[in-house]
Amino acid sequence: MTSNIVLSEIDYEVVGKRPIRPDGVDKVTGRAQYGADLKLPGLAFGKILRSPHAHASIISIDTSVAEKLPGVLAVMTYSDMPFAAVSKSEWSDDKQMGEPGSPIMRLGADYAKLVLQSEHIIANEKVLFTGHPVAAVCAIDMAIAEQAISMIEVKYQILDAVMDVREAMETSAPILHETMRTNKFGEIGDVPSNIMSVGRVACGDIKLGFEESDIVIEREFTTASVHQGYIEPHNATAFWNNDQLNLWCSTQGSFVVRNAVSEILRHPISKIKVTPMEIGGGFGGKIPIYLEPIAAILSKKSGRPVKILMSRPEVFESTGPAPGTWMRAKIGANKDGILKSAEIELAYEAGAYPGSPVMGGAACALACYSIPNAQVDGYDVVVNKPKTAAYRAPGSPQAAFAVEQIIDELSIELGIDPIEFRLINAVKEGLRRVDGPLYKKVGHIECLEAAKQHDHYKSKINGKYRGRGVASGFWFNRGFPSSCNITVNSDGTINLTEGSVDIGGSRASISQQAAEFLGISYEDVKAAVVDTDSIGYTQLTGGSRTTFATGIAAIEASKSVIAQLIERAGIIWDKPIEEIEYLDGSVVHKTDPELKLTFKEIASQLLGTGGAVTGSASTDPPGEGNSFATHVVDVEIDPETGKVEIIRYTAVQDAGKAVHPSYVEGQIQGGVAQGIGWALNEEYCFDHSGKMMNSSFLDYRMPTSLDLPFIDTVIVEVANPGHPYGVRGVGETPIVPPLAAIANAVSNAIGTRIYKLPINPGTVLDNIKCN
Amino acid sequence: MTSNIVLSEIDYEVVGKRPIRPDGVDKVTGRAQYGADLKLPGLAFGKILRSPHAHASIISIDTSVAEKLPGVLAVMTYSDMPFAAVSKSEWSDDKQMGEPGSPIMRLGADYAKLVLQSEHIIANEKVLFTGHPVAAVCAIDMAIAEQAISMIEVKYQILDAVMDVREAMETSAPILHETMRTNKFGEIGDVPSNIMSVGRVACGDIKLGFEESDIVIEREFTTASVHQGYIEPHNATAFWNNDQLNLWCSTQGSFVVRNAVSEILRHPISKIKVTPMEIGGGFGGKIPIYLEPIAAILSKKSGRPVKILMSRPEVFESTGPAPGTWMRAKIGANKDGILKSAEIELAYEAGAYPGSPVMGGAACALACYSIPNAQVDGYDVVVNKPKTAAYRAPGSPQAAFAVEQIIDELSIELGIDPIEFRLINAVKEGLRRVDGPLYKKVGHIECLEAAKQHDHYKSKINGKYRGRGVASGFWFNRGFPSSCNITVNSDGTINLTEGSVDIGGSRASISQQAAEFLGISYEDVKAAVVDTDSIGYTQLTGGSRTTFATGIAAIEASKSVIAQLIERAGIIWDKPIEEIEYLDGSVVHKTDPELKLTFKEIASQLLGTGGAVTGSASTDPPGEGNSFATHVVDVEIDPETGKVEIIRYTAVQDAGKAVHPSYVEGQIQGGVAQGIGWALNEEYCFDHSGKMMNSSFLDYRMPTSLDLPFIDTVIVEVANPGHPYGVRGVGETPIVPPLAAIANAVSNAIGTRIYKLPINPGTVLDNIKCN
Repeated sequence: MTSNIVLSEIDYEVVGKRPIRPDGVDKVTGRAQYGADLKLPGLAFGKILRSPHAHASIISIDTSVAEKLPGVLAVMTYSDMPFAAVSKSEWSDDKQMGEPGSPIMRLGADYAKLVLQSEHIIANEKVLFTGHPVAAVCAIDMAIAEQAISMIEVKYQILDAVMDVREAMETSAPILHETMRTNKFGEIGDVPSNIMSVGRVACGDIKLGFEESDIVIEREFTTASVHQGYIEPHNATAFWNNDQLNLWCSTQGSFVVRNAVSEILRHPISKIKVTPMEIGGGFGGKIPIYLEPIAAILSKKSGRPVKILMSRPEVFESTGPAPGTWMRAKIGANKDGILKSAEIELAYEAGAYPGSPVMGGAACALACYSIPNAQVDGYDVVVNKPKTAAYRAPGSPQAAFAVEQIIDELSIELGIDPIEFRLINAVKEGLRRVDGPLYKKVGHIECLEAAKQHDHYKSKINGKYRGRGVASGFWFNRGFPSSCNITVNSDGTINLTEGSVDIGGSRASISQQAAEFLGISYEDVKAAVVDTDSIGYTQLTGGSRTTFATGIAAIEASKSVIAQLIERAGIIWDKPIEEIEYLDGSVVHKTDPELKLTFKEIASQLLGTGGAVTGSASTDPPGEGNSFATHVVDVEIDPETGKVEIIRYTAVQDAGKAVHPSYVEGQIQGGVAQGIGWALNEEYCFDHSGKMMNSSFLDYRMPTSLDLPFIDTVIVEVANPGHPYGVRGVGETPIVPPLAAIANAVSNAIGTRIYKLPINPGTVLDNIKCN
Repeated sequence: MTSNIVLSEIDYEVVGKRPIRPDGVDKVTGRAQYGADLKLPGLAFGKILRSPHAHASIISIDTSVAEKLPGVLAVMTYSDMPFAAVSKSEWSDDKQMGEPGSPIMRLGADYAKLVLQSEHIIANEKVLFTGHPVAAVCAIDMAIAEQAISMIEVKYQILDAVMDVREAMETSAPILHETMRTNKFGEIGDVPSNIMSVGRVACGDIKLGFEESDIVIEREFTTASVHQGYIEPHNATAFWNNDQLNLWCSTQGSFVVRNAVSEILRHPISKIKVTPMEIGGGFGGKIPIYLEPIAAILSKKSGRPVKILMSRPEVFESTGPAPGTWMRAKIGANKDGILKSAEIELAYEAGAYPGSPVMGGAACALACYSIPNAQVDGYDVVVNKPKTAAYRAPGSPQAAFAVEQIIDELSIELGIDPIEFRLINAVKEGLRRVDGPLYKKVGHIECLEAAKQHDHYKSKINGKYRGRGVASGFWFNRGFPSSCNITVNSDGTINLTEGSVDIGGSRASISQQAAEFLGISYEDVKAAVVDTDSIGYTQLTGGSRTTFATGIAAIEASKSVIAQLIERAGIIWDKPIEEIEYLDGSVVHKTDPELKLTFKEIASQLLGTGGAVTGSASTDPPGEGNSFATHVVDVEIDPETGKVEIIRYTAVQDAGKAVHPSYVEGQIQGGVAQGIGWALNEEYCFDHSGKMMNSSFLDYRMPTSLDLPFIDTVIVEVANPGHPYGVRGVGETPIVPPLAAIANAVSNAIGTRIYKLPINPGTVLDNIKCN
């Protein structure tokens, strides 16, 4: 295997180095505090009764026997949710409770949506998926809580369930929400429907484009529901103390939890404190709230702190997977290999409640290429599955599975090398994405060139049942608000507090940026993730925004520290501040070389010259930089079993400046590993009644380290002009290409193209050509 | 009883009101988390073996049997303290470890002092007081820990102990520290001594002053050691995790603990996080560290978090009481009642290690009066008692006990009303204190006038064995560094974080100042005391500095918030910020009345216009305002038993602006109650060997609510020009006058003056005149 290659543009002192992660020792010694580790005086244990049916009306719930069980402290159902008592008519005065700008408010936090969100937390009149919460208890220990939920009697009237996105779009399908009325054309009428919305992004004239094409390929694709598969199950502990609600949970965004709980429980945000515990993986799946409102209400009713932990089956059945999809794509090119037109339909399952990432997929679908005429339609469709959640580059991998296979087919038909074909059409600065935005400086061409030059791509692939595939991928990356506080200690170290939960190493990557800007060493920065009472609003860790946006917050806080250090030097030296500047970690007089204080020196004089120095910053930086990747994969098929073996994998990605290359490599390798699982094995299997049949890690097959080769990474550093150090963001993009790259490689190996995920042994055997 | 009177100068919207305390519900429901409530996974319990002798050499310590007891996790002695392995010669390079400006650095954090501090934590070659730690263990439960310390065998060579300050000053006294060499004249020689230092403050020519006096009175006084008597015993939990030391404790100053532990354990401050738990009383006694270094070392050795709780006897015997004293005072006045000269000697017990508050007492002794010729000498003397600690206005009550009795005697001899006599001599703006500083605007005259006009003072006191006493008191009040962060929530509430531990209601009083400055309601401020990683350096809660200095930090942070809100309004309105101002809780355009956004309105728009707003400030405000009080007390003596009954008590005090008058009244009433205990009952009783005989609340008699009348308070508000709202500080001064006021009242009742505290029944009976 070749080693990783970092193509550096600028050398920094701290940024771009690989210091030791500050959370490492705690995590390997088991001392890091995860939500399940939390102990509080008088802690009670909650347990949730979940629906055994995918779709049913609730006739009655009898909790009376459970309530009498000794040790049971409280029982709750939907009737305990605040929205059970709020009618639409009284709502109008009250709708400004949420945090504007939060994800929920972006969706429009109106009454109907908040009722749906409440009913998602715990079912009201209907259950809409197997695993849907129906009632909950808390008790003095877990065994009693489990016994108590078994004593709750729920009478259901079972309804027909719909589990497939295309079936759900038919007018004959069982209807989940009677109030949804959108037809396939996006028109709102009188007929109930499972389609929440139809969206379109488009440019040019696709009819004209196809007329200009010498070759047009059209295919249909399907992908299965897959789960993020984080190791740590969801957990939440709530303590409703007087009018103050304290929450501890495993989340990607403490402020997101605060806002969502505030809206659903109609409790002011200033009376909610969310303490984010360490998080054992999220990948987008730990953005929504599930347990927090239930734990909160049980705590309010019992007067005790209440902890609820999910089991693995609960995680699979009741939290959001990535959507299963049906897609149709038609793309045309002329004989020179220039793309001319594309028409795409994406139908994504939202799960039981609306809100799939289909329009994200629509914007990403063709984002790698310059294409003058294009139209992408997206359908957000409800089915009787758990509500989908974000999963790394939400919506993009599925769309790339469709588009990048047709790109592969086109290149083969035209006799152009697949990387050359992509280079002909690759987007660059100044071009426009199908959905409108103009590209700033981006690195797709640089990724394709690096892949083309890579030893892997130059090597020959020999042998029967062996094949190579290539695919590119795109993700926006994100900005959004972040906050950071820095205090200077008198020994010249700093304490840095942030609101960004550390999932992928952000304590290190944010510290590196602060250290770089202040000209101090990484070891002199101590970073901590604090609760929502102790830091300014910070959006979730996700969307590949944290190293970019919270990094900028840290740089802004550092600027404030430097301005104050210059003021103090003015006091110490009795000089006007205009004569003083900060250079390479020292305050210096611009003309008198005798006057110089290093950061450590001036830090030791702060308390005698006006008190400590604290810098704080809240930002909402606009300059996020788009990310591209190109992956090359070699596979070998076992014709007897149909097993696909990954024999070599190289992932090239433009990270912008890689702040901590080891973390970047880890993100790329992790994204590829998850993409391989998505491509080859992972899927939700349901029985005829809508019950998941493989809700454990034994049955739901994710790749292990034994299944995979070393994943080679190449970090291409095309600096993002919107960040002082050129940071783009890394975490999403690497999961986008693998699905298509592997499908292309399998096609190359067996001569038949597979349009359906997962490409598991049975599917391969069904498609293999006996040659 | 008359009600409280607040003499307001300015009416504010929030400052000066009496809102509900934010910590109240938690405290009355038992949900507030004190150190003893803390539970951590794998928690071990520590216990300390303490010396049974007041003075002894340690011949040997055998811990081998204890170490083998099943369940014992670690055992430590002085040999585990870092300074056991540090020689003076290697020290020189290392002395800058402490936080400059911390109390320890003010004392000079040199090698010898740090060794003494280490030996105070746990005895090295000698034990110097009964209760001195000798060894410590931690075990899986408290019972095993207690059994283990009983198995440690210590061989002592008992030495003569010295328990009295005057005896300790004799050259024949047993010597505690062979290296101390100061004689009674302050000269350093070759002869070992128990005198650490002799200090003098002086002005004018006392010989000349006495020559100008028509009357001179000279007396000697003694006072006993008394304890602060906080309800919550000391506690500390330490977790030494890799190179990170986390501490949770009951302290008045989390940063003081961080610095002291850093110095003694030679561990960098950035690797120590101190989380202050709720505190159940401090009064100055929870400034020093006792348990923290021991818990830390036991944690390091055992790999577990370790909690140590003191019992009540440990609190009495091993933590710092206020010093017992011997004092001589000689004061002269002319026949018009004008003070001419004063000569005072104060000898204060430091306990087993140097550092009594005698020079504070020296500066306070005559601070109420203008006196042209004065000299106060202070002796800091070690004795075989626990090292003294601060106790409300440290050093001042004892000195006032001496001076205010002679003032009383002089007024009687001269036939001048005691309040009139004080008015003749009271200090005011522009005069100079004996030790040098010039008075700014102060309120002694206003207090005396308010006392004179009070219904209590105008009433007649009738009956045999009844008497009235008056006394004034002084305290500096303090500034020192404080930090505060404010984040604005989108619902128009703010989160305010501070480093000041909340003992006397500072969460409320700081919130009020922020609310006042921002023009928002008190209920919209949520204050939290956070750990040392999450806020800038903040000095301890004490010295009557917090409402003043942290209040200014909150105002400065509010200024930063307002500046950012003006910037945002500029973005929203597309107007230059020069045209915008902040008035009465709204951002307004200076000329266009249509352009106005209330705090709540603009708060809801922040996340869309650049992210959250966070204001932070670290300050070291110079303008602290001195505080004066005048107390009037009526007593009745039972001639049969000698019991002194307080039948009426009125305390007048200049608080500057009373931010929360209920808290101010509570502080005054609390200070008076403690002063009454000091005057009448409290004392450390030792047997011949130096063992404390009354180390429980049953035997150490503090006043209860049944012992006291309602204590009437009059808040005089002479605004401090050094604070935006005129705040001075409240907590110290009310304990200064009671000792002398009660002695004066007893003298008035029985016709004999008592110069010794406590004035307990036996003393009264010894002095009562049978008339």
